[in-house]
Amino acid sequence: MNSDTLKGILNAVSTGGTSIDDALISLKHLSLEDIGYAHIDHHRSLRKGFPEVIFGENKTIDQIIGIMERMAQWEKVILVTRIDADKAKAVIAAFPNAEYHSDARMICLTEGNIPETGKGNILIISAGTSDIPVAKEAFLTAKAMGNPVEAVYDVGVAGIHRLFRHKEKIEKASVLVVVAGMEGALPSVVAGMVERPVIAVPTSVGYGSSFGGLTALFSMLNSCSSNIAVVNIDNGFGAGYMASTINRL
Amino acid sequence: MNSDTLKGILNAVSTGGTSIDDALISLKHLSLEDIGYAHIDHHRSLRKGFPEVIFGENKTIDQIIGIMERMAQWEKVILVTRIDADKAKAVIAAFPNAEYHSDARMICLTEGNIPETGKGNILIISAGTSDIPVAKEAFLTAKAMGNPVEAVYDVGVAGIHRLFRHKEKIEKASVLVVVAGMEGALPSVVAGMVERPVIAVPTSVGYGSSFGGLTALFSMLNSCSSNIAVVNIDNGFGAGYMASTINRL
Amino acid sequence: MNSDTLKGILNAVSTGGTSIDDALISLKHLSLEDIGYAHIDHHRSLRKGFPEVIFGENKTIDQIIGIMERMAQWEKVILVTRIDADKAKAVIAAFPNAEYHSDARMICLTEGNIPETGKGNILIISAGTSDIPVAKEAFLTAKAMGNPVEAVYDVGVAGIHRLFRHKEKIEKASVLVVVAGMEGALPSVVAGMVERPVIAVPTSVGYGSSFGGLTALFSMLNSCSSNIAVVNIDNGFGAGYMASTINRL
Amino acid sequence: MNSDTLKGILNAVSTGGTSIDDALISLKHLSLEDIGYAHIDHHRSLRKGFPEVIFGENKTIDQIIGIMERMAQWEKVILVTRIDADKAKAVIAAFPNAEYHSDARMICLTEGNIPETGKGNILIISAGTSDIPVAKEAFLTAKAMGNPVEAVYDVGVAGIHRLFRHKEKIEKASVLVVVAGMEGALPSVVAGMVERPVIAVPTSVGYGSSFGGLTALFSMLNSCSSNIAVVNIDNGFGAGYMASTINRL
Amino acid sequence: MNSDTLKGILNAVSTGGTSIDDALISLKHLSLEDIGYAHIDHHRSLRKGFPEVIFGENKTIDQIIGIMERMAQWEKVILVTRIDADKAKAVIAAFPNAEYHSDARMICLTEGNIPETGKGNILIISAGTSDIPVAKEAFLTAKAMGNPVEAVYDVGVAGIHRLFRHKEKIEKASVLVVVAGMEGALPSVVAGMVERPVIAVPTSVGYGSSFGGLTALFSMLNSCSSNIAVVNIDNGFGAGYMASTINRL
Amino acid sequence: MNSDTLKGILNAVSTGGTSIDDALISLKHLSLEDIGYAHIDHHRSLRKGFPEVIFGENKTIDQIIGIMERMAQWEKVILVTRIDADKAKAVIAAFPNAEYHSDARMICLTEGNIPETGKGNILIISAGTSDIPVAKEAFLTAKAMGNPVEAVYDVGVAGIHRLFRHKEKIEKASVLVVVAGMEGALPSVVAGMVERPVIAVPTSVGYGSSFGGLTALFSMLNSCSSNIAVVNIDNGFGAGYMASTINRL
Amino acid sequence: MNSDTLKGILNAVSTGGTSIDDALISLKHLSLEDIGYAHIDHHRSLRKGFPEVIFGENKTIDQIIGIMERMAQWEKVILVTRIDADKAKAVIAAFPNAEYHSDARMICLTEGNIPETGKGNILIISAGTSDIPVAKEAFLTAKAMGNPVEAVYDVGVAGIHRLFRHKEKIEKASVLVVVAGMEGALPSVVAGMVERPVIAVPTSVGYGSSFGGLTALFSMLNSCSSNIAVVNIDNGFGAGYMASTINRL
Amino acid sequence: MNSDTLKGILNAVSTGGTSIDDALISLKHLSLEDIGYAHIDHHRSLRKGFPEVIFGENKTIDQIIGIMERMAQWEKVILVTRIDADKAKAVIAAFPNAEYHSDARMICLTEGNIPETGKGNILIISAGTSDIPVAKEAFLTAKAMGNPVEAVYDVGVAGIHRLFRHKEKIEKASVLVVVAGMEGALPSVVAGMVERPVIAVPTSVGYGSSFGGLTALFSMLNSCSSNIAVVNIDNGFGAGYMASTINRL
Repeated sequence: MNSDTLKGILNAVSTGGTSIDDALISLKHLSLEDIGYAHIDHHRSLRKGFPEVIFGENKTIDQIIGIMERMAQWEKVILVTRIDADKAKAVIAAFPNAEYHSDARMICLTEGNIPETGKGNILIISAGTSDIPVAKEAFLTAKAMGNPVEAVYDVGVAGIHRLFRHKEKIEKASVLVVVAGMEGALPSVVAGMVERPVIAVPTSVGYGSSFGGLTALFSMLNSCSSNIAVVNIDNGFGAGYMASTINRL
Repeated sequence: MNSDTLKGILNAVSTGGTSIDDALISLKHLSLEDIGYAHIDHHRSLRKGFPEVIFGENKTIDQIIGIMERMAQWEKVILVTRIDADKAKAVIAAFPNAEYHSDARMICLTEGNIPETGKGNILIISAGTSDIPVAKEAFLTAKAMGNPVEAVYDVGVAGIHRLFRHKEKIEKASVLVVVAGMEGALPSVVAGMVERPVIAVPTSVGYGSSFGGLTALFSMLNSCSSNIAVVNIDNGFGAGYMASTINRL
Repeated sequence: MNSDTLKGILNAVSTGGTSIDDALISLKHLSLEDIGYAHIDHHRSLRKGFPEVIFGENKTIDQIIGIMERMAQWEKVILVTRIDADKAKAVIAAFPNAEYHSDARMICLTEGNIPETGKGNILIISAGTSDIPVAKEAFLTAKAMGNPVEAVYDVGVAGIHRLFRHKEKIEKASVLVVVAGMEGALPSVVAGMVERPVIAVPTSVGYGSSFGGLTALFSMLNSCSSNIAVVNIDNGFGAGYMASTINRL
Repeated sequence: MNSDTLKGILNAVSTGGTSIDDALISLKHLSLEDIGYAHIDHHRSLRKGFPEVIFGENKTIDQIIGIMERMAQWEKVILVTRIDADKAKAVIAAFPNAEYHSDARMICLTEGNIPETGKGNILIISAGTSDIPVAKEAFLTAKAMGNPVEAVYDVGVAGIHRLFRHKEKIEKASVLVVVAGMEGALPSVVAGMVERPVIAVPTSVGYGSSFGGLTALFSMLNSCSSNIAVVNIDNGFGAGYMASTINRL
Repeated sequence: MNSDTLKGILNAVSTGGTSIDDALISLKHLSLEDIGYAHIDHHRSLRKGFPEVIFGENKTIDQIIGIMERMAQWEKVILVTRIDADKAKAVIAAFPNAEYHSDARMICLTEGNIPETGKGNILIISAGTSDIPVAKEAFLTAKAMGNPVEAVYDVGVAGIHRLFRHKEKIEKASVLVVVAGMEGALPSVVAGMVERPVIAVPTSVGYGSSFGGLTALFSMLNSCSSNIAVVNIDNGFGAGYMASTINRL
Repeated sequence: MNSDTLKGILNAVSTGGTSIDDALISLKHLSLEDIGYAHIDHHRSLRKGFPEVIFGENKTIDQIIGIMERMAQWEKVILVTRIDADKAKAVIAAFPNAEYHSDARMICLTEGNIPETGKGNILIISAGTSDIPVAKEAFLTAKAMGNPVEAVYDVGVAGIHRLFRHKEKIEKASVLVVVAGMEGALPSVVAGMVERPVIAVPTSVGYGSSFGGLTALFSMLNSCSSNIAVVNIDNGFGAGYMASTINRL
Repeated sequence: MNSDTLKGILNAVSTGGTSIDDALISLKHLSLEDIGYAHIDHHRSLRKGFPEVIFGENKTIDQIIGIMERMAQWEKVILVTRIDADKAKAVIAAFPNAEYHSDARMICLTEGNIPETGKGNILIISAGTSDIPVAKEAFLTAKAMGNPVEAVYDVGVAGIHRLFRHKEKIEKASVLVVVAGMEGALPSVVAGMVERPVIAVPTSVGYGSSFGGLTALFSMLNSCSSNIAVVNIDNGFGAGYMASTINRL
Repeated sequence: MNSDTLKGILNAVSTGGTSIDDALISLKHLSLEDIGYAHIDHHRSLRKGFPEVIFGENKTIDQIIGIMERMAQWEKVILVTRIDADKAKAVIAAFPNAEYHSDARMICLTEGNIPETGKGNILIISAGTSDIPVAKEAFLTAKAMGNPVEAVYDVGVAGIHRLFRHKEKIEKASVLVVVAGMEGALPSVVAGMVERPVIAVPTSVGYGSSFGGLTALFSMLNSCSSNIAVVNIDNGFGAGYMASTINRL
């Protein structure tokens, strides 16, 4: 339930379109709804500007569908992250308008067009082909939250001229999300080229002493550039969300 | 050298106030200046909106003064971070207008007033009394970069009503920097209260299994809130810088 | 064999209901019983107030049933923890009165009603939907050990008002078990609200730098609240047991 | 300010011994008092049964004295932990009734006798001579919180008969705090002997692969006994506090 | 090839039972035999008193059989460790006299009886039912190397009286191998009871912060007893081998 | 595209064999080719002396074939590393001249003979039978890059005379690649025997505290020999590549 | 108090040389003596063949002298380990017959000659000059426990011919203690040369990724040789003690 | 003793300039010289092309001087690494021709000019001002081993155009040593620009999660460039040595 929905109810009351009793019923769901295995936070899109997002990994199909059903009554955008193909199939069967993005392992269910509310472009950059799933998760999240988004993939530092070919795009972006595994050097280099904020996302791509992304994570935290902050390993969703939050400022 | 200095030179040339030869000498310093132990990046304030900041910890007094001398010809704000009291004394002797903040271990040298360029308030929140030095480093950095800054100290989660007393300040801030050691839970709680971006700073305060801040760091990276990104342990400077970058958007 | 069983035997002897020889046979099992792959500690419920609990994970079905058979002669409550659905099916076939709780992966076999011996309520709180299995293990253990138990699920710190809705329940509990993964902040916040002891249970829920629960574990050990102590990652059983031990004081 | 102080004020008002205005002034300090570098939580002894404890390590002498001055107006017991001899000397000069315990690095300031409120004995057991400082911190904390406390030192598992000599004391204790460094095995052995709750405290004593107490910590978390929970490395204060909380149940 | 085989060949030569040419062919195999994927060290049983042992885990069935075929010409005892049931079946098909021990995942192929060469009893002690596979590997190794071996299983420190029931056996053993997972406390306790050498074996049994045996490993390395040395996690074979080496002294 | 291909185009232009327009089309591919999921760096064999190598692990079959198709137009040697048997089968079907080496999990596609450009022999040494796959990856890479290569397998330090049998080969090698898991001691010993550069490759072979190769890695980094440098765990490809780079000097 | 002292008392009683009352007084000290900060285990030399050893590092001078005074009444050899020069000076002043070995940081106090009870030679081998202090601690311990001991220093694997010069000494030793820092490879190589037991001691010598000895420790635990077991980092005392225990078998 | 010295002795013998007996005395020192605390390896410069280098950190002044005296009889270049200013002063007093480089903490003692034997230039690149000491250690080592060496300092990736200004020098170097702390990204970027071998040196510069250089180390091991190998943290000496070994090929 966002501000518009809320205003709609109040307007309807003031103009007599809705009885006070009916409005009361609607509004009392603004508080938490306890459905046994979850407390759905309907108030969240009012408070935080975007509804709760469903983390699919440790939930059953029934739990996911149950939460979506409650949310669908009030929200225009519902996202499910970390959901594998099998679960997704069952969810899509229940919500035929929902769309599954297999590379990003996300479901997006939107009602109508999402109005663009972000100020400038969010640019997603990824270092290697293998980092694309995480980059896509960031891309889709930022898109669903109402931002114009662009992406440049496979421009890692081992051939740094590949990056420089996209200099113009990089310099005009409002917020940048830079995704990299292995040595995680790309965000430092990009942040050194721009004055805009960079959200760095380490990925678990690599082997040997990459430690499932820890090397990239610490590399990014130790960046010599200062217009940079870091989210958790493989957390493309978080990066897209944080970038949107910034882009709305 | 920022855009204004640059325009000044060019204007002087166009109006005849400066000869072309003199302007040339000035401008060639825009490129890097190699002073043996450092490549000073005079072009940086043009490219990134703020001049280089001097990391004091592993530099000698002479190196610090040498770099400051070159920078002082072009820049209006010079910051030295991680500089202890002894070194600071020697630097202040050379630059009497500079100010040393012993709690944050920073030197600020500003010429004239810093114009406020940030859009809203940056709010610095710290969990414990012992986190104040890091919080102060973020405070001074954000201030020097032209932002209105406020601070609330000692409001950790063990007595969470202390935090809620400042609810209004928290909700109206444009960007929040939240500093915490030990279990590092404060940024998650704060981020859950607002829709604005939160920069989380883990500190090395604690003992036993706090691991010099790693516990707080990982706690913050694993936050259930999504409008949050993290900088390195004790990196108050980085947090203040990133918050400013965002606040200028 | 608990104190009541023992007194029963002794009474029977004193009233002539049991011959001394028969009593001797019964009593010599009070010492350890060595069944090859295990030393069953029949003396334990006398010494520790609750019989041994069978850790199912690394035992074969035959070993589990064998141990249960010996224990069933003397004990009124038998618990098997960490037992998957396949093994459980075979065990239930052998003990039709036993009940399998698939979410908590536990078998409870009770003879008659368990008398309530705990003093006050034990309250189990969990941060997320995904933490419920561990919370359930704590719940069932505390229940089996004779305590009134209540539970509140999915009240993590990212929406802290969800927690505060249960303030009354929280404040009246005698002992609290707080289960959380990811950043593990919930026990600190809860412990700050009450004067009662809090047992914190980190879970392995999370990804990236959650390190299978280590981040939550260290977060809890570093809590700024002092009425808190911690058990091992995912150790819902241990938390329920410790809470019962305290609740009997 | 504990319940008695509060009732005293209210009684005085009802009997006319205090004017309403004076009572108001007293009571408004019940809320937080912000003294710049700290939010003093006067409400805490009402809410949690014991006033805030001052963690001395990262505070200046002036900060410690400042906080003590405010607290001394309302509280009967003030504890300062982790305070070294030099700082302590200055604090004792300001509060001549305070007592410094150099081995435990604690200051206790008590007004009058502390009434015993705990139910049974708290027993502190330590494995080696070198673990005594941490054990003493637990001892003094439990004492200050109104418990009868006993201690047995230097009874590690390498000569386990030393432990068994104290069997009677161990079995009659209400709550046990067991302190051990190196391999951290003592709490497991003790917990196997009793049905009461055991609070385990790892210490940083040891060398080589003791990792500043981590080995002992993990050893304790992995205990095969279940009536055990763990506090942070060297956290004698926390153990004493938790034991007191339990002993009041 | 051990000393006896060698003397046999030389005797045969000296008595004319073998021609010098035939002896030469036999003896040149004493040096390394290179079979492409392995250098078989036939000289090893002469130099080290026991032939090479085949680590089965990363070898194919063909490699294992190939190495066994070469060894079988000279050796009376062949051991294959870490071999799963499927591979073992294929190997047993090729060597019908070989025996597979599924709990220890070992194959033993012996020709005739193994003469007992060890001086006293080697005693294998294990803490829990789940540690038995590793204990069995130690048992079989020590047996195959010509020692009288005894075993006591499931006598962990959480019920320490179980251990004390075997005091006599423990005190009369010549060398002790003590196997434990979880907190790894058992070797310390046993070593404190005897003056004989104890070989400690950590196992990967446990969950949460047992880190696949690291907690037990470090616990053992930090033992307060000094008649103790440690082998790698789950390395029952190494423990049995080291104990045999000592028992032959 | 290497220098020869480039010269060929230019010669054709100068002699009229190619029109300027056709040459332009060819040459513009020298820059990066963006095929959506990858930026192919055709310029790389000019700049670095060897074309890009395709890391197969996180790529789909279609992505691998797509990249190979573009590269095959310009390059004479194409390598795919970390490709499992299933994917390899599909790739070989598309490129029948390509060869799959299952032990090294590599595909080599070469057009014509590879001219030997290296100066001396590269010698690959591995410690155990289980290290052979990594050693083979190094072998094939060095071969494909135009070097004479030799290999000695299974000569670990537990029977060091096995190594010394190959002393001559070792001393005459131009560059040595030494592959070892477990304790990782072999590179130190080999480097102590020669004056030539040694590339050390840790492998993830081992169990218990081998930590997937970290023990071997750190062992090698701490070598007392100085003519040694290390590549990542299991990175046979990198070692072969680095050795080739050195051997071309 | 060893067996001889005990027999002496009993003989004196049987022959009337000592009254029963005097004997009683002597004998009751056989049990533990509790001197407040320590439980002295006088029974230990009877039970374990060697008296307790005083770990000096965390004890005060007074504690050390106090314990030595009690022990000196019954024991012929007293060792203090990890004692720095300053403390040692004060202890030597109280026990003029005691000897301080500054390189090993040990005090030895012996009454009369120590009879040689070990069977063969114990050989101490160290890899580098910097490992000598730890090697010396092992040397002195083994000596004080009645063994013939030899030592060979500075024979690391980077110049392995240095080691082979001592082949004869190595092959004839009964037990070997091998001390090494950095890559910790020496024990593996030595154990591959002999059939006798090797006690490996990692040292904290090294820098960078030696992690205070952890690299050497894990290297030794992963040795491909099997006649090897490991003690804690820098634990020369433990290695000498374990070697003596073995050598007495 | 290098080949020239050896040939000189033999020539002198053949021409009668030296008696056979004198030559024998000289030559027998070619084997190891045992001076108690060290085995000096005079044969090393023959075998490895450069004499042993003295690691100063854990040696006493007397040990260093003692080793230098023996070496000075045969060697033309003696290096002492990791030697602090105080020790160095005493050593210089004994060897007035020796030179101390305080930034690199090295002593170089050379007799006559060092002939240049390397093939091309070795280029040392460092990321930050704080990395210069390690870079200097590499510089001096490569110089002392007979190579032309150049250096470029302070060209980290946060302002990557600083690096590109030195493109020509970078492309023409024969071997490159790249030194970086913090995120350790520089070697990847440099290696992507050249086809020559790059030796990467992580430094312990940084704070927070730089872990004393581990982040940089792992970053370099995970480089996407393949013409790169890594030495230990802060091991400038090893990098210079390895680069020289390569440059002599």
